[in-house]
Amino acid sequence: MTIKIGILGYGNLGRGVEAAIKQNDDMILTGVYTRRDPSTLKIATEGVAVRSQAELEAGRDDIDVLIICGGSATDLPVMTPKFAAKYNVIDSFDTHANIPAHFAAVDAAAKASGKVGIISAGWDPGMFSLNRVYADAILPNGQAYTFWGKGVSQGHSDAIRRIDGVLDARQYTIPVEAALDAVRSGSNPELTTRQKHTRECFVVAADGADKAAIEKAIVTMPNYFADYDTTVHFITMEEMKRNHSGLPHGGSVIHSGTTSDGVHQVIEYKLTLESNPEFTGSVLVACARAAYRMNTEGTSGAKTLLDIAPAYLSARSADELRAHYL
Amino acid sequence: MTIKIGILGYGNLGRGVEAAIKQNDDMILTGVYTRRDPSTLKIATEGVAVRSQAELEAGRDDIDVLIICGGSATDLPVMTPKFAAKYNVIDSFDTHANIPAHFAAVDAAAKASGKVGIISAGWDPGMFSLNRVYADAILPNGQAYTFWGKGVSQGHSDAIRRIDGVLDARQYTIPVEAALDAVRSGSNPELTTRQKHTRECFVVAADGADKAAIEKAIVTMPNYFADYDTTVHFITMEEMKRNHSGLPHGGSVIHSGTTSDGVHQVIEYKLTLESNPEFTGSVLVACARAAYRMNTEGTSGAKTLLDIAPAYLSARSADELRAHYL
Repeated sequence: MTIKIGILGYGNLGRGVEAAIKQNDDMILTGVYTRRDPSTLKIATEGVAVRSQAELEAGRDDIDVLIICGGSATDLPVMTPKFAAKYNVIDSFDTHANIPAHFAAVDAAAKASGKVGIISAGWDPGMFSLNRVYADAILPNGQAYTFWGKGVSQGHSDAIRRIDGVLDARQYTIPVEAALDAVRSGSNPELTTRQKHTRECFVVAADGADKAAIEKAIVTMPNYFADYDTTVHFITMEEMKRNHSGLPHGGSVIHSGTTSDGVHQVIEYKLTLESNPEFTGSVLVACARAAYRMNTEGTSGAKTLLDIAPAYLSARSADELRAHYL
Repeated sequence: MTIKIGILGYGNLGRGVEAAIKQNDDMILTGVYTRRDPSTLKIATEGVAVRSQAELEAGRDDIDVLIICGGSATDLPVMTPKFAAKYNVIDSFDTHANIPAHFAAVDAAAKASGKVGIISAGWDPGMFSLNRVYADAILPNGQAYTFWGKGVSQGHSDAIRRIDGVLDARQYTIPVEAALDAVRSGSNPELTTRQKHTRECFVVAADGADKAAIEKAIVTMPNYFADYDTTVHFITMEEMKRNHSGLPHGGSVIHSGTTSDGVHQVIEYKLTLESNPEFTGSVLVACARAAYRMNTEGTSGAKTLLDIAPAYLSARSADELRAHYL
């Protein structure tokens, strides 16, 4: 049984999904869908068609699961419910505060169509969420800490690029080692925003730009930088391309608790990712397998990774998992 | 809704389960069952009866889930199927090679009775298994490494105690830092047994015992020590009691893979446990919640953590999990 996958949206994440499909023998990419002119898009998989998003409207029989690679701000709140009316769908919706509303919208559409919609897949939300829930269930008398980085925050990089005189920028979020060590020790410290992470910015300024003004605009920027210790480095465009073209990321969920008086237990889940979009794409693809299987069994509605028995994500049989992975 | 829990077997693990129940407001311990004379057992929870195992035979209505805290060698293969005929049951069966047969026996009994039996819960098998499966599903082009320790191996400690002239012994399994670092680097090294772990033994010898002979018997013992670099320390009984009375353990599952050519991704799950039995007991208790809920929904048969949607393990509602943990 081969699962037929469609990708909607071909940015970094769409390409990450495409790479992941190639690593899974039980799946095949049957089409990439775009809001752009399809003729302008060159994809990495030979022999696969690029089509207009409009061609999804009627409902296609060459798609078992549609993986929607859009942005959380404006794309996914519209797209995921819309296409859940016709397909099993997967998204990586990551605006944490709006997850309940998004879940409700996708749930209504997917229940009406009899399809499965898995939302908020990826690593945070996604694998980090799973680890927060497992750890809290096992050690209810405990506390979880999430650290991000070292990695590129695209939102913060974009915020710097909007400053006058900035040609390009890359922002790295870096966890503070002393804070990680304190949490790993089991001492359950109270940590401020500033104590948990620092921010390091690499900026290409335009010729003649006021670098001091740019630096001040960055480090005082509310929400993005003001609450952090931020360092700014001005570099050339060549250095930017040579040293900062990747999208590494990762981080840790550390849950520390006690099971009886003074008996400490620490659970840590850590990701070290050379490519954030390729890893996220790999999680979406595993979720596509789960959505397909669950739907084949008659399940419908919105789901998150918290609702999926782990075996559904694996290409291996239940017997093989019990014999060799348990 | 309060879930009524019975514990069968009151050794280290049974006491760990008892401690965990106290931390979960949605559960209550309604009885401890033992093969010993109940009058000889003093338990930590006031007001809870200790009864003979025989009193489980008829089927009791004050038990929603029976957590079976027996040994994997001879107890659980008999007990878990037997009591799955009357109760939802949980065990920590950890003889990896025999899991398929144990699963089949429990599955048959639980399907016949309409109950749920969750086997092989704990951390390995258990949380480590989950992490092996999640990581393999996400990064199929990768390899998993499991490291144990630093922690006390009770089987290895017992093996030393059986040597002539040994009064007491404690064996620590210790992962080799260089091996951990090589795996974390993403280089996917080939590692021999000797390269992954060392073994450190603390031994109390009888007066006049031949310590050189004891040391030789340890380091050359097949299966247990011969394939490892093992160090032996002779200590006094007072030192043993003062410094080695705990049962710490833990370890790491590290899965390293690539998502496209040369792009490395590393997933690490790490446990640092001051009490192995209390942590294992906490996992069993979370599984008891899941078994109860799944059975209430009409599910029956044998399950492992791989078959359980994570939300079933948590005392929190699906809405709360989505709003605050996703």
